[in-house]
Amino acid sequence: MISNEIISQFKAALGENSVVNDETDLSRHSHDASSHPSQMPGLVLYPVNTQQVAKCLKIASDNRLPVTPCGKLTSLEGNSVPQAGGIVLDLSSMKKIIKVYPDDFQVIVEPGIVGEALNQELAKYHLYFPAFPASSHIASIGGMIANNAGGMYAVKYGVVGDWVMALEVVLACGEIIKVGSRSIKSVAGFDLKSLLVGSEGTLGIITQATLKLIPVITQKFLIKVCFPLVKQSVAATLSILLSNLEPGAIEFLDASSIKHINHYKSLRWNEEATLLIELHGEEKEMKARAERIRKLCQKENYTSFLLAQTQEEMKKIWEGRKAVHPAVMASAPNLALVPGDVGVPISRIPDFMEWVEKVQKESGLTMATFGHVGDGNFHVWITYDRTIPDGLQKAKVAAGKIVEQALWLGGTCTAEHGVGIGKRDFLLQEHGDTIELMKKIKNVFDPLGILNPGKIFA
Amino acid sequence: MISNEIISQFKAALGENSVVNDETDLSRHSHDASSHPSQMPGLVLYPVNTQQVAKCLKIASDNRLPVTPCGKLTSLEGNSVPQAGGIVLDLSSMKKIIKVYPDDFQVIVEPGIVGEALNQELAKYHLYFPAFPASSHIASIGGMIANNAGGMYAVKYGVVGDWVMALEVVLACGEIIKVGSRSIKSVAGFDLKSLLVGSEGTLGIITQATLKLIPVITQKFLIKVCFPLVKQSVAATLSILLSNLEPGAIEFLDASSIKHINHYKSLRWNEEATLLIELHGEEKEMKARAERIRKLCQKENYTSFLLAQTQEEMKKIWEGRKAVHPAVMASAPNLALVPGDVGVPISRIPDFMEWVEKVQKESGLTMATFGHVGDGNFHVWITYDRTIPDGLQKAKVAAGKIVEQALWLGGTCTAEHGVGIGKRDFLLQEHGDTIELMKKIKNVFDPLGILNPGKIFA
Repeated sequence: MISNEIISQFKAALGENSVVNDETDLSRHSHDASSHPSQMPGLVLYPVNTQQVAKCLKIASDNRLPVTPCGKLTSLEGNSVPQAGGIVLDLSSMKKIIKVYPDDFQVIVEPGIVGEALNQELAKYHLYFPAFPASSHIASIGGMIANNAGGMYAVKYGVVGDWVMALEVVLACGEIIKVGSRSIKSVAGFDLKSLLVGSEGTLGIITQATLKLIPVITQKFLIKVCFPLVKQSVAATLSILLSNLEPGAIEFLDASSIKHINHYKSLRWNEEATLLIELHGEEKEMKARAERIRKLCQKENYTSFLLAQTQEEMKKIWEGRKAVHPAVMASAPNLALVPGDVGVPISRIPDFMEWVEKVQKESGLTMATFGHVGDGNFHVWITYDRTIPDGLQKAKVAAGKIVEQALWLGGTCTAEHGVGIGKRDFLLQEHGDTIELMKKIKNVFDPLGILNPGKIFA
Repeated sequence: MISNEIISQFKAALGENSVVNDETDLSRHSHDASSHPSQMPGLVLYPVNTQQVAKCLKIASDNRLPVTPCGKLTSLEGNSVPQAGGIVLDLSSMKKIIKVYPDDFQVIVEPGIVGEALNQELAKYHLYFPAFPASSHIASIGGMIANNAGGMYAVKYGVVGDWVMALEVVLACGEIIKVGSRSIKSVAGFDLKSLLVGSEGTLGIITQATLKLIPVITQKFLIKVCFPLVKQSVAATLSILLSNLEPGAIEFLDASSIKHINHYKSLRWNEEATLLIELHGEEKEMKARAERIRKLCQKENYTSFLLAQTQEEMKKIWEGRKAVHPAVMASAPNLALVPGDVGVPISRIPDFMEWVEKVQKESGLTMATFGHVGDGNFHVWITYDRTIPDGLQKAKVAAGKIVEQALWLGGTCTAEHGVGIGKRDFLLQEHGDTIELMKKIKNVFDPLGILNPGKIFA
């Protein structure tokens, strides 16, 4: 329970309407987009500027109240679930574009702006932010940075953190700091910017971000190619990656993912291992590359190869890809999800995919595997009926086998979703030798442990 | 003085011949490639593997001995000067390539290998490490990582840190840790890898690095274009950058730099503001781009435009560029150098260059300005006669004016050389609000303060 006196302090800092404790709002902030257990916060705060965030943290610090920051609540590992109750700091009202530097290809934004909204605005300057997750139509930039999100274009452009030049951050005590630089290169002191990127709100609250941009990608070409076997699609991917063809995206969808999409979107795609390959560049050059890709795929005996002929056709295919999540979740009543997000070195993808098929067969569970094959990043999504007593347990066992295999192959337990609640145990397996260092760093930034408690470390 | 008992412990750990205290060797390790004051170490150690490094640090820790790691001593801000005496840990004997992963475009190396030697070896696999400083023919990978070096290809490929996937590091206490992952994407816990990159040996000793690679660049094309005025060359650079032509390098040399090179290498280059622009890709496409670049430069009234016609011609031009440092240093007797290394947002380059010309005029000092204009990274090199009493002071005042202007323009006090000894005061100006955090992080990694003491922080 948060006392009336503290609530009054927050109201004095933010104004009456920005301090909310009605049931609906608390409930909405009790969970993210995952199936991790929800937890009601005591209060939701909606600051509108950095000074207000600083005031909130000062009050929280003085009263040792847990503070869980959030944007649009789209995280998938419980990253924004207020596990210890306390305050949720909802930054979605801070969504201004502060300044565009067209000649520097840079923009300064507040954290609450949604990815697609940012790109719509940037289009006026012929600029584009190329690193974003598949959820960028609903996810906020702040959340993307706090989780160092990846996404479909990462194979060419890198992940969100690669495009962050500088951050304004409020520390747990309410102090405001700036890290990074607008200079393209800087080695002035320790790289605190990279430390804060991906720290999931456990080290500080991002209140402004300076992002690097590229010119709008005006010419895009999309290939959809299907194979009878997963291993053929993987072999084709490796050939493409080794041939220096610089695809903007290489996405993989297994037959199960396609089945779900077909049902959900009323499509009739081949229910086979499928690659979506996007090329960015001048038409003649890209069409020549598409033909080279076709030949590489032919060697792996594709069953269909489509180069989308219209913008409309491209858009429809991408909408299908982006529908995997809702399609899987809508496929049966009472479904809950254990969302996988592992990464393996690309040479180990064949071994990894073989293992996934083995786990699926042995467990008898419904799985859909898709993801950013060009980065070796796969989402093995395991659903279970939440009304069946051991459903969660069985799904977790299978998911664990898959993560452990990824680690054994030299990979990672989380490529782009973050650790949150769901990957804390696996983080110990992956980086057990540095967990103590991480905890000490956490203690440097947040000695009272009020920022997003219970995340990353158990 | 290091006691005989401690020396015996080191000899037991490393073997008799790897523990050296003869005057010549101590003296060689008393300075780097800069003019910062030298300091004799008490002992130089040459470990040959990680276990030996760990043993050295355990002994140093037990005896609270300062430890300054070094590679090939090519740093330019005193980064590897053993300011507190004690031990120099010379890692240049650890120069093995541990493993190449051709299908992953990755290699694991020891820190002592020199950049060019690595690329010669990688060429056997048709692989290439694209991020390296101009000194890569003499600089070691470990030093490049510890200083997060940049260089001539950074405008296209990024800096050294962008190509580091994982590190093995020995902590001050002698513990061995691994950070990062061979997975292309990973968000498993705090980004300790980026924290260690560029930490200048103050947080830990790098004993192995996993690097990302690209296929060998087989087709390169080099343009050399001259302009009467600095501002014309800068305007041309900005046009090229904004036109999405993806140059592999855009280097700037001012008339003074060219004069030095001409004299040193007996060349007859136009003594004017000069750009060297390298393009990487398929011949027909790149020649078309070269023509687009020529037109953009024509708008700025170039006086000469050369597209190198042979490999030999290209090589000769690059050798000229790489000779700036020795050429400047050989231009008069008793010269010492204050090496500038600032970065500014590219839109602010014209303002910055105007300022440099003003400072040069007002100070009457000999300066040579060159650098990686495509990244807004300039080396303003100010020389002074070390036999003149106030020479250093005057040079420092001028250098300070230039750094302060860079900071005022939103830039950085050090783009690629690191803080070392020379930029400690400016780091306070640039990141004063986070210095305490940095010091606390230093304390987490190195509570006794034995690692490279006196660097980064005063």
